[in-house]
Amino acid sequence: MTAGSSEYDCAFLTTVLPEDRVALERSRREQFSVDASVHEPSMPDAVAWPESTEEVSAVVTACAERAVPVTPWSGGSGLEGGGIPVAGGVVLNVKRMTGVDVEPTNLQATVGPGVVYDDLNETLATHGLRFPPGISSGDVATIGGMIATNASGFNAVKYGETRDHVRRLEVVLPDGEVVECGRGVVKTSSGYSLKDLFVGSEGTFGVVTGATIAVSGLPEYERAALVTFPSRTAACAAVADVIGAGLVPAAIEFMDSLTVELVNEYRDAVSLPEEPTLILEFHANNSGIEEDVAFARGICEDHDAASWDAPGAGEMDAVWSARRDALPAYRAHGEGLEVALLGDVVVPISNYPDIVAAVADASEDLDLLTPCVGHAGDGNLHYAPLVPADDEGARERAAELNDAVVEAAVELGGTATGEHGVGLGKRKFMRREHGAAVDLMRTVKDAIDPNGLMNPGKIVPDGNE
Amino acid sequence: MTAGSSEYDCAFLTTVLPEDRVALERSRREQFSVDASVHEPSMPDAVAWPESTEEVSAVVTACAERAVPVTPWSGGSGLEGGGIPVAGGVVLNVKRMTGVDVEPTNLQATVGPGVVYDDLNETLATHGLRFPPGISSGDVATIGGMIATNASGFNAVKYGETRDHVRRLEVVLPDGEVVECGRGVVKTSSGYSLKDLFVGSEGTFGVVTGATIAVSGLPEYERAALVTFPSRTAACAAVADVIGAGLVPAAIEFMDSLTVELVNEYRDAVSLPEEPTLILEFHANNSGIEEDVAFARGICEDHDAASWDAPGAGEMDAVWSARRDALPAYRAHGEGLEVALLGDVVVPISNYPDIVAAVADASEDLDLLTPCVGHAGDGNLHYAPLVPADDEGARERAAELNDAVVEAAVELGGTATGEHGVGLGKRKFMRREHGAAVDLMRTVKDAIDPNGLMNPGKIVPDGNE
Repeated sequence: MTAGSSEYDCAFLTTVLPEDRVALERSRREQFSVDASVHEPSMPDAVAWPESTEEVSAVVTACAERAVPVTPWSGGSGLEGGGIPVAGGVVLNVKRMTGVDVEPTNLQATVGPGVVYDDLNETLATHGLRFPPGISSGDVATIGGMIATNASGFNAVKYGETRDHVRRLEVVLPDGEVVECGRGVVKTSSGYSLKDLFVGSEGTFGVVTGATIAVSGLPEYERAALVTFPSRTAACAAVADVIGAGLVPAAIEFMDSLTVELVNEYRDAVSLPEEPTLILEFHANNSGIEEDVAFARGICEDHDAASWDAPGAGEMDAVWSARRDALPAYRAHGEGLEVALLGDVVVPISNYPDIVAAVADASEDLDLLTPCVGHAGDGNLHYAPLVPADDEGARERAAELNDAVVEAAVELGGTATGEHGVGLGKRKFMRREHGAAVDLMRTVKDAIDPNGLMNPGKIVPDGNE
Repeated sequence: MTAGSSEYDCAFLTTVLPEDRVALERSRREQFSVDASVHEPSMPDAVAWPESTEEVSAVVTACAERAVPVTPWSGGSGLEGGGIPVAGGVVLNVKRMTGVDVEPTNLQATVGPGVVYDDLNETLATHGLRFPPGISSGDVATIGGMIATNASGFNAVKYGETRDHVRRLEVVLPDGEVVECGRGVVKTSSGYSLKDLFVGSEGTFGVVTGATIAVSGLPEYERAALVTFPSRTAACAAVADVIGAGLVPAAIEFMDSLTVELVNEYRDAVSLPEEPTLILEFHANNSGIEEDVAFARGICEDHDAASWDAPGAGEMDAVWSARRDALPAYRAHGEGLEVALLGDVVVPISNYPDIVAAVADASEDLDLLTPCVGHAGDGNLHYAPLVPADDEGARERAAELNDAVVEAAVELGGTATGEHGVGLGKRKFMRREHGAAVDLMRTVKDAIDPNGLMNPGKIVPDGNE
């Protein structure tokens, strides 16, 4: 047993689901004790794999009757520990709920929570459609997890977060009741937007068993460019001007020179100029895209861009692979260094240069190596302090850096978590960011889940935290 | 005293606010007994005009201490009775809270709830910006009211509802506490999205005293066209194909032939072909707009469009005045007819022809004259049964028509209210649309406003309703 969890007798689950869809053995439970984060594992007492809304309801009802905690689980790719069953109990794995029903005319699809992001997009592509938030872990992350954390990524700057795409949710409440929140329509002003309450609630209000999401047509035209700048300040200023000019790139990504250096080390074939870099991508359905690209290029040149590398259509992957390789490059870094944590803050875009500087300053003060990348068009910055594998002191300094950067982000009008959720890791920043609104969050949580059985220990800090 | 309301002694308000900002006299209270809807008036016992968040908090606190109901009020342009103080008590009028602070680089503005939509857009225009939902009553409606009902209009099809623009809200809770919900950033996954709970809650959770909203650049290019079709089915099919093709018009409006006929009657100078009509508008920042317009025109011609009237830039008002004159034309209809109610439903766009047919069928069955207009690109339809001024029977049949159309909309997967809110008028449809989720709405309402003092009698039906 890992620290903090209690033991619950979960044998009752085998009367609720077929035995082969319940794991009580330690060996089968272990992989669900931790997600993709660096947080401490905690063993569940059982794992259940329901295959339908009715089965989810049956499991949740049975757990409610026995006061057994339930932690929903799908892709396991969370980066803040949202899926770790810190109170033990049942991990409710919705991975097998993978239905996809596409309505091309209505530009929407109704999907199960276990559908993997890339798989959904493969299905949608056969209709000329896509679900476009553009997350980095699309080969693993599921729609259920994306709804849980309000995930987003590369393409949110044009297409929006997961929240912006959710029209309707089917949810199993903590007492096992099934409700539908929202409707499969473009707009509504019909009562409280409960679906927006569930988006980003990380399973603390219940289990999402289905969702109707907005999808977009695949763009007819795509253009991309990799642009280098003499300084990170120049790169950040170009981002603000591109967005401020009313251009709506499909992506505008920042990589600091350390990231480019690590990516170059990681890859054999390609070598990029080791300078602060932007990747820009544009999507459009008409040839006006060339004007947008030229406009953006002019703005970058106004900020002394040193190079503008724009591959032809079909060669966009060459541009993107550098960005996609950033996290693997951090992880594969030689000299025995490990990624201590992956930071994720957002600030108003006017303050983007300041938050990038805050990371650099804290990193220098704390004697750390901290490469940065970010969905700069959204004001979103990721940073990854690299520490020697067995150096506890460095790991503590990395945590200190994270505290300092989150504090800076909040002070700059920003948020403690842009797309990774709160989970365990960002809980301690909630009161700093939200003030007394945290008490209102607690009020709502206690009203919907009075016995505190749904993913306990997440999002809302307890009294003294 | 009108039916249903109680009398509260509100003299205490003069100790909370300067006397000239409190109305206790009947003559000054009367205009706040009804909004722009056809619902029954109900007199408030007092009206208060706070000018700051602190004053709102002081009024709400004083009312909470005395168990006096509070109904927030701003533009008074609501169409479903959301602002009518059905339980009496205090109308809290935020009309004087009109601050506007624009952050051009961050494409956002922080505004008071009393700012009128058109006034805000006038201020934003000096920065090359706009707040774009495109509501019809923009000369009266305030941002506070738009947030209360999640309002939208002509341009929501491209730019989204009010909800899509709200990043941060300052709210006075039912006990007088001030909280901030959300942050002035493009995206966040930091905890429960309380701001989304307040958007569309019509003042039943508290009083919005400030909002940070996303704004857009004014488009460089605008094109519009007025297009007529041989049948409403053809017009509706064209709408579905334009949207399904991935075109994103800034507006795509439907007018039935009866509406065009009434508009022609209403106006002296202009005469339009009395056929089912679409108005299309496109916005862009590059010349690719011409390709989009040509594409849309091709789709309309595929559906046998009889005419395509596209004025030059600067003459767009000529196209739009027909649409803008629709409601005035209904109201000015000769032969002593009055608008009995203004319907507002949304269906998935694939079902738009069905909901238009449902209005026509119900109108024929019930012997009514019912012109229709709608934000067709969103699947949103408005209908306005016209009845003789003193014919109670016809008025009852108009209510019957509304019941039938809402039932049809919900049956078609749609919603009972697209942009006007629930207020009093749509309350009875809430359980039909949302099922058991209505109980969850009640749970949340009771948790946030345990004494039921904030805009009582709205949105969530009581036990037996």
